[in-house]
Amino acid sequence: MNSLVSSKDLGRHTIELLLQNAQAYADTNQVGQKHGTVVNLFFENSTRTDLSFQMAAQRLGLQTLNFTVGHSSASKGESLLDTLETLEALGVDVVVIRHQIDWPKELEGCKLNLSLVNAGSGAFEHPTQALLDAFTMRQHFPSLRGLKVTIVGDIRHSRVARSNLHILTELGANVQFAGPDFFRPDDLPEVPWVDLDRAVEETDVLMMLRVQHERHAESIDVSSYHERYGLSEQRLARLRGDALIMHPGPVNRGVEICSAAMDDPRSQILKQVSNGVEIRTAVLNWCLQGGKHGKLVSA
Amino acid sequence: MNSLVSSKDLGRHTIELLLQNAQAYADTNQVGQKHGTVVNLFFENSTRTDLSFQMAAQRLGLQTLNFTVGHSSASKGESLLDTLETLEALGVDVVVIRHQIDWPKELEGCKLNLSLVNAGSGAFEHPTQALLDAFTMRQHFPSLRGLKVTIVGDIRHSRVARSNLHILTELGANVQFAGPDFFRPDDLPEVPWVDLDRAVEETDVLMMLRVQHERHAESIDVSSYHERYGLSEQRLARLRGDALIMHPGPVNRGVEICSAAMDDPRSQILKQVSNGVEIRTAVLNWCLQGGKHGKLVSA
Amino acid sequence: MNSLVSSKDLGRHTIELLLQNAQAYADTNQVGQKHGTVVNLFFENSTRTDLSFQMAAQRLGLQTLNFTVGHSSASKGESLLDTLETLEALGVDVVVIRHQIDWPKELEGCKLNLSLVNAGSGAFEHPTQALLDAFTMRQHFPSLRGLKVTIVGDIRHSRVARSNLHILTELGANVQFAGPDFFRPDDLPEVPWVDLDRAVEETDVLMMLRVQHERHAESIDVSSYHERYGLSEQRLARLRGDALIMHPGPVNRGVEICSAAMDDPRSQILKQVSNGVEIRTAVLNWCLQGGKHGKLVSA
Repeated sequence: MNSLVSSKDLGRHTIELLLQNAQAYADTNQVGQKHGTVVNLFFENSTRTDLSFQMAAQRLGLQTLNFTVGHSSASKGESLLDTLETLEALGVDVVVIRHQIDWPKELEGCKLNLSLVNAGSGAFEHPTQALLDAFTMRQHFPSLRGLKVTIVGDIRHSRVARSNLHILTELGANVQFAGPDFFRPDDLPEVPWVDLDRAVEETDVLMMLRVQHERHAESIDVSSYHERYGLSEQRLARLRGDALIMHPGPVNRGVEICSAAMDDPRSQILKQVSNGVEIRTAVLNWCLQGGKHGKLVSA
Repeated sequence: MNSLVSSKDLGRHTIELLLQNAQAYADTNQVGQKHGTVVNLFFENSTRTDLSFQMAAQRLGLQTLNFTVGHSSASKGESLLDTLETLEALGVDVVVIRHQIDWPKELEGCKLNLSLVNAGSGAFEHPTQALLDAFTMRQHFPSLRGLKVTIVGDIRHSRVARSNLHILTELGANVQFAGPDFFRPDDLPEVPWVDLDRAVEETDVLMMLRVQHERHAESIDVSSYHERYGLSEQRLARLRGDALIMHPGPVNRGVEICSAAMDDPRSQILKQVSNGVEIRTAVLNWCLQGGKHGKLVSA
Repeated sequence: MNSLVSSKDLGRHTIELLLQNAQAYADTNQVGQKHGTVVNLFFENSTRTDLSFQMAAQRLGLQTLNFTVGHSSASKGESLLDTLETLEALGVDVVVIRHQIDWPKELEGCKLNLSLVNAGSGAFEHPTQALLDAFTMRQHFPSLRGLKVTIVGDIRHSRVARSNLHILTELGANVQFAGPDFFRPDDLPEVPWVDLDRAVEETDVLMMLRVQHERHAESIDVSSYHERYGLSEQRLARLRGDALIMHPGPVNRGVEICSAAMDDPRSQILKQVSNGVEIRTAVLNWCLQGGKHGKLVSA
């Protein structure tokens, strides 16, 4: 039984295995007869991630339980570890967790006899998003080695940026960041911080991040943000013909990206959603391998 | 692949087909082995409609995804079209939508490669309710041609009244409305507006609408409403012996209908609920026919 | 078709049957192919009970419907009986109910053609919890006859205490209560009220109840509660080596029980969760026996 808690758990070999397995699911459209129960334990809103894990579980033949955090003991103040030990005792096999806190850190050193999958932890990690992003790039470029990927926007608060940085770098890509100075992260000084207007002409992949109005206090002037840091029509016109436009969704149209860019043939935004189902099928399948055994969580 | 967005999408031939198919499900109690995934995208409360679509989907062997709008990106301000394109990209086959707005109008001209079913759009449409109402009437009357149907109450805000008007008229019934003047609709001058006390003695079907306290601002005096416009015990006594009492539910006992009327042998209120499962089974089955292809939404 | 509304519905023979059936599920890990639909109708928060009924239903091969009370007609003021008659008309077979009120009393004398399972009614009953508690004790003691069980804490508001009192007494155990005087119940004068510090040395089972901050108005000083009425480290040291520590969960660590007691080998708290799945599998299986027939609810 495996867990996918951090992108840093994944070496290049495992990443390759998961990408190939996802491609096999995409090619064959096969349906599985696995046994096991998956619970989505989501302390934050989600459409794509929640539903794509449900789709992936059903595709493998797994059972899913309906769990709404707001109606549960978790909302009575039960600790995350106590909730997880309860799920383990109930016989649940895989728990997919999204939380506003760095939950792997909170669980560090705890022993749980079930599989954990990180579907988002604070501003820290979202490894299955990074896997599906890498998977999407691989459908267009023969190799990610030397690929220039520019991630734009609220890097400081972005778990998508951090997980992508690790996984894309592991696969040989060159990741750089762009955006407003107040979104520049303090903890990643080694990543080039570039000018968006120059990057847009030379990048292979332009990954625009969501402006998370719900997450940070600074009020952002939406139209000036779009003009200065968004994928506007002017920048879209200067993007290379074979470049990819990516966004983890949901998109604020007219803020981080103009509507024309969303509908552009270079846009992979909906393809990322589809690929999310394939990747999560591969991840759940991988999680269930090797039988049950207690495992220490490492943050 | 078909969609059921408006009752006006349905000509008499398709209505007949759906009613016959529902009867076949009622007769055989058969269970299907269809493949496909259904999502209920409900922006308004529901018990009957939500659960009966789930029952219908399970009966056909379809998968259902668990989706709570309040916990989704839809609550982060994502547009309905973007949500639907996401569901399409996830591989969902049928989306059942209930919304306080006229969502088909908002989607007009959009191309989506999935099936849409209207489970309620503002004060405009609720076509599966009208189908199940017609189905219920057909179990009692050899034909709906010439049948007198009186719909009573808050016609102005009623999607049930509007969808029934179209479908029952298409099947040859004569629909008339009754109720307080302030609930008389401006947009349907061609429909007779009758006195309830006279109608009650001659109608074949008396369909009482829910007073939707949650929907309109006018405060209604409940006991005077019941006396003037409700199916009171006095009016119940004057109703024909072979007439049907109908109500889409949930009922406000003592407001639009007295308890004695609910439990009267002429009451079809619970039978309407059962018939809802048969009709929605027929509708979902019909939606999945013909394979996937892009389709323009027409309001 | 059977219902489990009150622990008092269950004589010793039926209790034995359910415990033996649960043991058979625990031993064989078998999966069923039953037909039927289960709905959890929960008006109060739950993790363990909600999920374990879902697990049990899936294990038997039953369908479950996704129903959130807050998004349903029940929140539009529909009566419980009208909601249940609607579920019956939809074709639901078993409704598992948790409610803050004494709902069996409200339904007394009503005839419903479906199976009801009480998953909590106000401060009155929680019979499946008592069954799983008895089941857990039976795994450790050859017989419950003469077993001394001390239930500690908020007895006054505890449905767990009341259901356990009936079922354990029926199996021959001697139940006694302990806790603060203001939690002593008026309605159970026949049950011995003992001093916790003396009881801790001689009891076979120490069942600590949750302090339900959300349920009663009296503000409780948490640290003084723990010192006077909790299973503190001092009391843990004086507990017999073969005694069992039980708690229905979720635990307030450091209030009714210290962390050391939770992790003590005598603690059955997670085993109770696992046993809940076995018991609820046995209960659902028993509910579905004998075919459908109308049944009067007796409170």
